[in-house]
Amino acid sequence: MSQNCAVILAGGQGKRMKSQMPKPMFKVLGEPMLEWVIKACEKSELADICVVKGYNADVIENYIDGRYTTVLQAERLGTGHAVMQAVDFMNSYLDGNILVLCGDAPFIDAETIKSSLKFHTEKNNAVTVITSVVENPFGYGRIIRNENGISAIVEQKDATDEQKNICEINSGAYWFKSRELISALYELKPNNSQGEYYLTDTISILIGKNHRADAFASDNPNVVLGANDRKGLLMLNTVARMAVIEKHMTNGVEFTCTDGITIENDVEIGAGTEILVGTILKGKTKIGDNCVIGPNCIIENCEVGNNTKLNYVQAFESKIGDNVKIGPFVHIRPNSVISNGVKIGDFVEVKNSTIGEHTAVAHLTYVGDSDVGNHVNFGCGCVTVNYDGSKKARTTIGDSAFIGCNTNLIAPVTVGNGAYTAAGTTVTKNVPDNALALDRGEFRIKEGYAIKKLKGKNEKDKNKK
Amino acid sequence: MSQNCAVILAGGQGKRMKSQMPKPMFKVLGEPMLEWVIKACEKSELADICVVKGYNADVIENYIDGRYTTVLQAERLGTGHAVMQAVDFMNSYLDGNILVLCGDAPFIDAETIKSSLKFHTEKNNAVTVITSVVENPFGYGRIIRNENGISAIVEQKDATDEQKNICEINSGAYWFKSRELISALYELKPNNSQGEYYLTDTISILIGKNHRADAFASDNPNVVLGANDRKGLLMLNTVARMAVIEKHMTNGVEFTCTDGITIENDVEIGAGTEILVGTILKGKTKIGDNCVIGPNCIIENCEVGNNTKLNYVQAFESKIGDNVKIGPFVHIRPNSVISNGVKIGDFVEVKNSTIGEHTAVAHLTYVGDSDVGNHVNFGCGCVTVNYDGSKKARTTIGDSAFIGCNTNLIAPVTVGNGAYTAAGTTVTKNVPDNALALDRGEFRIKEGYAIKKLKGKNEKDKNKK
Amino acid sequence: MSQNCAVILAGGQGKRMKSQMPKPMFKVLGEPMLEWVIKACEKSELADICVVKGYNADVIENYIDGRYTTVLQAERLGTGHAVMQAVDFMNSYLDGNILVLCGDAPFIDAETIKSSLKFHTEKNNAVTVITSVVENPFGYGRIIRNENGISAIVEQKDATDEQKNICEINSGAYWFKSRELISALYELKPNNSQGEYYLTDTISILIGKNHRADAFASDNPNVVLGANDRKGLLMLNTVARMAVIEKHMTNGVEFTCTDGITIENDVEIGAGTEILVGTILKGKTKIGDNCVIGPNCIIENCEVGNNTKLNYVQAFESKIGDNVKIGPFVHIRPNSVISNGVKIGDFVEVKNSTIGEHTAVAHLTYVGDSDVGNHVNFGCGCVTVNYDGSKKARTTIGDSAFIGCNTNLIAPVTVGNGAYTAAGTTVTKNVPDNALALDRGEFRIKEGYAIKKLKGKNEKDKNKK
Repeated sequence: MSQNCAVILAGGQGKRMKSQMPKPMFKVLGEPMLEWVIKACEKSELADICVVKGYNADVIENYIDGRYTTVLQAERLGTGHAVMQAVDFMNSYLDGNILVLCGDAPFIDAETIKSSLKFHTEKNNAVTVITSVVENPFGYGRIIRNENGISAIVEQKDATDEQKNICEINSGAYWFKSRELISALYELKPNNSQGEYYLTDTISILIGKNHRADAFASDNPNVVLGANDRKGLLMLNTVARMAVIEKHMTNGVEFTCTDGITIENDVEIGAGTEILVGTILKGKTKIGDNCVIGPNCIIENCEVGNNTKLNYVQAFESKIGDNVKIGPFVHIRPNSVISNGVKIGDFVEVKNSTIGEHTAVAHLTYVGDSDVGNHVNFGCGCVTVNYDGSKKARTTIGDSAFIGCNTNLIAPVTVGNGAYTAAGTTVTKNVPDNALALDRGEFRIKEGYAIKKLKGKNEKDKNKK
Repeated sequence: MSQNCAVILAGGQGKRMKSQMPKPMFKVLGEPMLEWVIKACEKSELADICVVKGYNADVIENYIDGRYTTVLQAERLGTGHAVMQAVDFMNSYLDGNILVLCGDAPFIDAETIKSSLKFHTEKNNAVTVITSVVENPFGYGRIIRNENGISAIVEQKDATDEQKNICEINSGAYWFKSRELISALYELKPNNSQGEYYLTDTISILIGKNHRADAFASDNPNVVLGANDRKGLLMLNTVARMAVIEKHMTNGVEFTCTDGITIENDVEIGAGTEILVGTILKGKTKIGDNCVIGPNCIIENCEVGNNTKLNYVQAFESKIGDNVKIGPFVHIRPNSVISNGVKIGDFVEVKNSTIGEHTAVAHLTYVGDSDVGNHVNFGCGCVTVNYDGSKKARTTIGDSAFIGCNTNLIAPVTVGNGAYTAAGTTVTKNVPDNALALDRGEFRIKEGYAIKKLKGKNEKDKNKK
Repeated sequence: MSQNCAVILAGGQGKRMKSQMPKPMFKVLGEPMLEWVIKACEKSELADICVVKGYNADVIENYIDGRYTTVLQAERLGTGHAVMQAVDFMNSYLDGNILVLCGDAPFIDAETIKSSLKFHTEKNNAVTVITSVVENPFGYGRIIRNENGISAIVEQKDATDEQKNICEINSGAYWFKSRELISALYELKPNNSQGEYYLTDTISILIGKNHRADAFASDNPNVVLGANDRKGLLMLNTVARMAVIEKHMTNGVEFTCTDGITIENDVEIGAGTEILVGTILKGKTKIGDNCVIGPNCIIENCEVGNNTKLNYVQAFESKIGDNVKIGPFVHIRPNSVISNGVKIGDFVEVKNSTIGEHTAVAHLTYVGDSDVGNHVNFGCGCVTVNYDGSKKARTTIGDSAFIGCNTNLIAPVTVGNGAYTAAGTTVTKNVPDNALALDRGEFRIKEGYAIKKLKGKNEKDKNKK
């Protein structure tokens, strides 16, 4: 088993966010930055992860929920001090290496972690700084290389003019030999104006002990990116949004305008599918080939088949088949199955229901807690009455049934195969196969009604004067 | 009382806009550019404002509607001539200062007005040009400074190559001593190819009389911005949109993508609230903390509480409480009150109604002209019938009532506390507390209906052949 | 009749698109790139067009559908080989000129075609290369000019450092004298690593025969643009989208934010109309003056009058009059006529129907296969029941009729002028002018229902324990 682990620093507050939430819990593409960092570690097959929590530690604790070790940095005394809190964790991996990561730099990736570890061990480094070469290094710590690796990391405020021109910067991620890191941490001193223990000071301590320090420049320029305020968070989201969209374009997904489109990381989309403006795809959503999704769809944790068209649809935790056409203005709520060839028109809600193949639900209808067969036709304004004020019940509709307009189906009730319900009927009992259900009152005409009504109104108006 | 006033030049046409509307009436973030300028003056606590109208003067006149003095520039003879029309107005403030502003340069701000006035009076200037230092000064009048203030403003076409490199430009806004401005205006000559009276010529006139002319460089680079065509107007809107969004980010409002988001100037939003794509917030809207608004909401002149979620909601002139959840696809029309804890689902319209706490209106329902109690449950397809073709009336629903699906409530009518209406009922009389109302016809089944129908159809089809 | 024709090369695959579709069939602003090229030729009044198909030739064949000659390039042996396939076609125009165009470079324009032809014939060129001067020529063939026209086109990989600095590049479009082109094609040799016949080699062949070769630099920098992958296709769409939007701005159409707006090429929009975010205008849509369209409308092949407001409307193949107000959340399906002054509110579908002047359809209503008069008022939840499970039929409603809420109109049926239908009525027979139709059951009240229901529930709950 690997002896290489990660310590993720997640104690920061992010004052400029104006929030009670610890900074690593702010979301990029719908997921906390901390989760991005954890996922990169998981993909790198490290032995274990330890999360250092600090500001509003309960939020981190609840989020991690036992998945990994967490330790508390009770006081905010610098990055070195934060890593010190994980000494017990690190002592279990004394013969391995420790990756220190920032919980609010979400774009660290498994490829960088694995390549830098290979470099770190091959070079027999005590510490390897993961770096990035950027166009504008302003504000970042500069990497001072020498013939033997690196000699220092110089912060912006301490840099000479020459050093300020260095474009290789510190990402804030490091590999350390566990044993050397722990011994160096014990030698850290808060000799600075802030009175903090700086993790970067371990580098000169280790060099002083004739250990090797070196830098690994990542190909991914985004490893350095973090957010100190909402504007920075917007920037991270924009970088992530466009990267995901480009990934799907490479896979043959079509976008003619990307405005308002957000696709979360785990979403899968087949080739030939077109995603239209304003569409938001979330969670574990999987979309097949040659679909048209959008404009303005929200699809979360759904599986969608091939050749399906969704226009202004919101769908959650459901399954939608092949050759389905839905929209505009439709709401598919959780636990619904929309089978192949179904057509759902405008202003329809489906909830916790199965809709059989080639069934049509054209307009202004609610299908909830129902099992609907194949080739059923719903008229306009149909309602499955699934709640009587105290309990919920299911409706069953057989194949090829025809549900007339403005029908109420009072659950629990079954409409048989091939059965009809007349427009305006409230169905309170089961309808046998092929039967017609109706409850219509007597149809009456009152001749001249409008004339009398108008006369009455005119007289009333006259009396008012 | 202050002796300092503003004269706003609002006579321009904007030919390239292809419109009958005077240019200062074109809107930026939903408000005429003229109104932006007026508001900046109002925040600067000037004594009075005079608006010079010209092209389609009635539009300006009707818009100002007596709030301020307006004067007519009947002929279009230049900016100097425009200011001359305000001489009677300015004569009432002879001992003070006159701020001349362009009615179509909307981003002048109170801070600039107040700081430049302070500079103007402290330096004892006869005229102070408000300027901006920009990267690309092409097309603007350049400010020629000397040891004693400024010596001239040189237009693009008259500038030497050296002068063209000057990056300090004229914003078109000026402070004048009233008395000196008036006397200089009388000396203006239309000695130019256009035959116009140029306001900028007053500067050399005043310098010629040994008065002091100087320039105040505003920190706000946008004071110079105006629009000559629709493309320029789009640019002004973009600048204003992003500035407002940044202001809210600084206040702790979250945006993960700003596409299609427009927030007007007077909108207030609490910290921790997230605004999603395509959302338009207008007028005096005030949104609380920790809400999620969007995607694709339009909210105008509404007050929204804390922890409320609006998804595809259009709401106008209404009040929405705390912990409310509305959407998707909901329309809240004016004079509605949605109380705390209410849930409104899909395809619901509420108009001129009060919805009590924790009431649920799940789907496909219209609640209009109604007073609805707490903990009421509406089924699907309910309608408050508030109009009988000649008059409107109100519906009252008591606490904990249960309105069955496809119920019609014929107003005026009252449903008592805890009362039920059966699905499909048309309620024409008041329903007492805890009673059930129904009007269902006899439920009948016609066995074998579909088979006969099919047979009939087949025979008809056969006969056709 | 003109002797000048075009040969359009449309045989490419576009492997990186990850699609079975030939590359020229990918769409820009809703139209295949090939169609853009054909339209530019049509506007240039050329005598005829020949399309060279190759990869998945059937798709091209079916798309052209006999409009123009197509020829098959069975093997993919280079651009010269592709043009050779059109020799029979070209032989009919031996005394004229042949324009060779790329079927996947959509932005060639008629102005460029006509000006370059004039240049080509006036200069008596055997070949005229259409070129563009760009900022970044990387990857394109560079134009080598000399005192006598051009001497060569040098590809990126063959260019000297000096040649790499040349910013005039080959667009891939050429005019040839027909006779010279054909003879040069026969002399082409596949003397290159790919073993292909390059069309550009005809230039040196023609120069070698003392013919004149020259370059025409187009004013349109976009003539060179093509797409090799989905990212390139997105870029072409973005260029086209913004160009169309700018055209409409110049015409006096207002945009305060262009996010998510796509307007296809043939759409017409009147001055003073405002297009709001997320709006998609397609096909032959024509919109009048002073309308407000959006946000988030989809309008396809519709004619819309003046002063009309559409808010979240999807409308297809329909006609919408002046002073109409529709939305939010409305679906107008094909073959509908919405007359002047109509108001349609929320959650309404209209299909294959005529709605008379000043009629109101306020909410949650479906009007299908209907002829509705003027000044009709629809209540909420009305349904025209146009389908009985086997056939469709029409509904007719007279002027000033009043359709009560939740009315079902069972077609075929006629509601007379000024007639009323009571709320909840299912109208099965014609209603005479001014009459009232109703079918309401007896209205009953069951006192104390809720108390008994609650008691029953409590007892059941008790029994469960």
